[in-house]
Amino acid sequence: MGSYSIGVDLGGTNLRVAAIDPNGKILRRETATVSFDGGPRQVVNRIAATIERTRENCAGHELCGVGIGVPGFIDIDAGLIVGSANLPGFQGFPVRDEVQQRLGIPIVLENDANAAALGELWMGAGRSVKDLILLTLGTGIGGGIVMNGKILHGAQGMAGEFGHMTVIPEGNPCGCGNRGCLEKHASASAIAAMGSMMHFGHDVTAEQVYELALQGNERAKMVFESMGRALGIAIANLIHIFNFPLYLISGGPLPAWNYFAPAMLAEVNSRSFVFSRTETRIEKALLGSDAGLYGAAYLPFQREAAYRVPTSS
Amino acid sequence: MGSYSIGVDLGGTNLRVAAIDPNGKILRRETATVSFDGGPRQVVNRIAATIERTRENCAGHELCGVGIGVPGFIDIDAGLIVGSANLPGFQGFPVRDEVQQRLGIPIVLENDANAAALGELWMGAGRSVKDLILLTLGTGIGGGIVMNGKILHGAQGMAGEFGHMTVIPEGNPCGCGNRGCLEKHASASAIAAMGSMMHFGHDVTAEQVYELALQGNERAKMVFESMGRALGIAIANLIHIFNFPLYLISGGPLPAWNYFAPAMLAEVNSRSFVFSRTETRIEKALLGSDAGLYGAAYLPFQREAAYRVPTSS
Repeated sequence: MGSYSIGVDLGGTNLRVAAIDPNGKILRRETATVSFDGGPRQVVNRIAATIERTRENCAGHELCGVGIGVPGFIDIDAGLIVGSANLPGFQGFPVRDEVQQRLGIPIVLENDANAAALGELWMGAGRSVKDLILLTLGTGIGGGIVMNGKILHGAQGMAGEFGHMTVIPEGNPCGCGNRGCLEKHASASAIAAMGSMMHFGHDVTAEQVYELALQGNERAKMVFESMGRALGIAIANLIHIFNFPLYLISGGPLPAWNYFAPAMLAEVNSRSFVFSRTETRIEKALLGSDAGLYGAAYLPFQREAAYRVPTSS
Repeated sequence: MGSYSIGVDLGGTNLRVAAIDPNGKILRRETATVSFDGGPRQVVNRIAATIERTRENCAGHELCGVGIGVPGFIDIDAGLIVGSANLPGFQGFPVRDEVQQRLGIPIVLENDANAAALGELWMGAGRSVKDLILLTLGTGIGGGIVMNGKILHGAQGMAGEFGHMTVIPEGNPCGCGNRGCLEKHASASAIAAMGSMMHFGHDVTAEQVYELALQGNERAKMVFESMGRALGIAIANLIHIFNFPLYLISGGPLPAWNYFAPAMLAEVNSRSFVFSRTETRIEKALLGSDAGLYGAAYLPFQREAAYRVPTSS
């Protein structure tokens, strides 16, 4: 009888759950839809029920704990969501304790982008390192910082807000109040917006801009070069700040790597002497949308390992 | 009989040494000139002799260890300088072991900007926090990151290279190969260069630009506003990345705070929603050029405290 952990990835419409053993083998997957119309308590009931179903399907194994990744700022110690535009009604809601009460097992709550960074470290592109940064390109740009194997949270759980780094001081306006935020120049939404500027149609998507690039459209390629340069400015800055060995990129635009990566790497190379002088890698993340599940499942293992270290005062 | 530690700050022409007790009280100060013409071994002899003199003057107290801050990239584990433009001949030189052999006491080698950040945490403006970032404005811009009370080094000891963060992608050229580096827009040298652009004279200094601002010169004030905005872009980025409670500024231009800080804070406020939503402080460092001495002296205390924690495998 082996032990295992359960990772939960709570999204705006879907709930994904996986039972994973200490070697990273997925024993079981469950998914469920969620609606936020009924308030947070109903969502928590759905989370608890899906975890319970997963647990029943893993009978004969010992459950070590549950990690839950959510798209919001987390107060780690209190186990609650302090801010989330994507989870209406959850502001200040004690997610961790509510799930814990229903199931009677230890729960760890974490930001989903942070969980993804930890997942890549555990079972993805970062298995050879202890320090990495993950940038996830989506509607916005999320990210996570893992240092010495542990997630960096910051004072209010807001560390790793790479999407709002200023890369072009007089650049595109952002809803946050700033101009030139990275996510206004390098996210999937930014690719679509730039495609629209290139007269590919008002509703063009990042995928369609990528298709056009594949067909040899020079203006579509320019969009990815522009996006790559913005990403390169941000990563050059992160390299100067952290001097980490590995920076990972994930998200929808990843298939367009060959169109944006050359411009990105040229930018980093010319802007960061630390990059050009050291063995610093900028690579594709490997786990895709499972990264957050792996990271969430790893949290209880990590906590258990920490408890095992004998300390006395 | 109390214990104490010795902090050493090695500069390009001067060597400063202080004996400091665990409460931060300076028991003794020594200074010496250094010349790099005779090679690193001669410099190390001078360091050892000055430490020895300090020690003799603290007879009756127990020496806990010595911390040495140097202006270069450090391989902490190996105790050597892996790169420094300011210390000719020291590339790859085993400073720590050479001093240790001469004195027979434990030595910790550290980058001087990192030591200054730790010093501010221990006895300066950061006494109330465990996480802070220090930016030191001089010829260039150096910096240090202290997280959970400890210096962040990065893979090759190059973390905290804030001076080469890109703040203006098409900004002033930098000797590092980049354009728009923070230190080309916000260091003391950048203030002087902007003063020169304002026709204050080819050889105008940052101090003279400050004097002009004090006299009400509007162009001199513009220089500090420009410098403040560049600093604000960089600090807004650091806040989004770290979500630390405290960011400190030190260095020669600090007296001009009232001329650059309003522009800096306005920039941070408009660029960082994390800043505007949280209790994040941007303040003057308090220890001036003594910060590095305090930090260097704190390193042996920190190491001793770490040894005291009982661990078993």
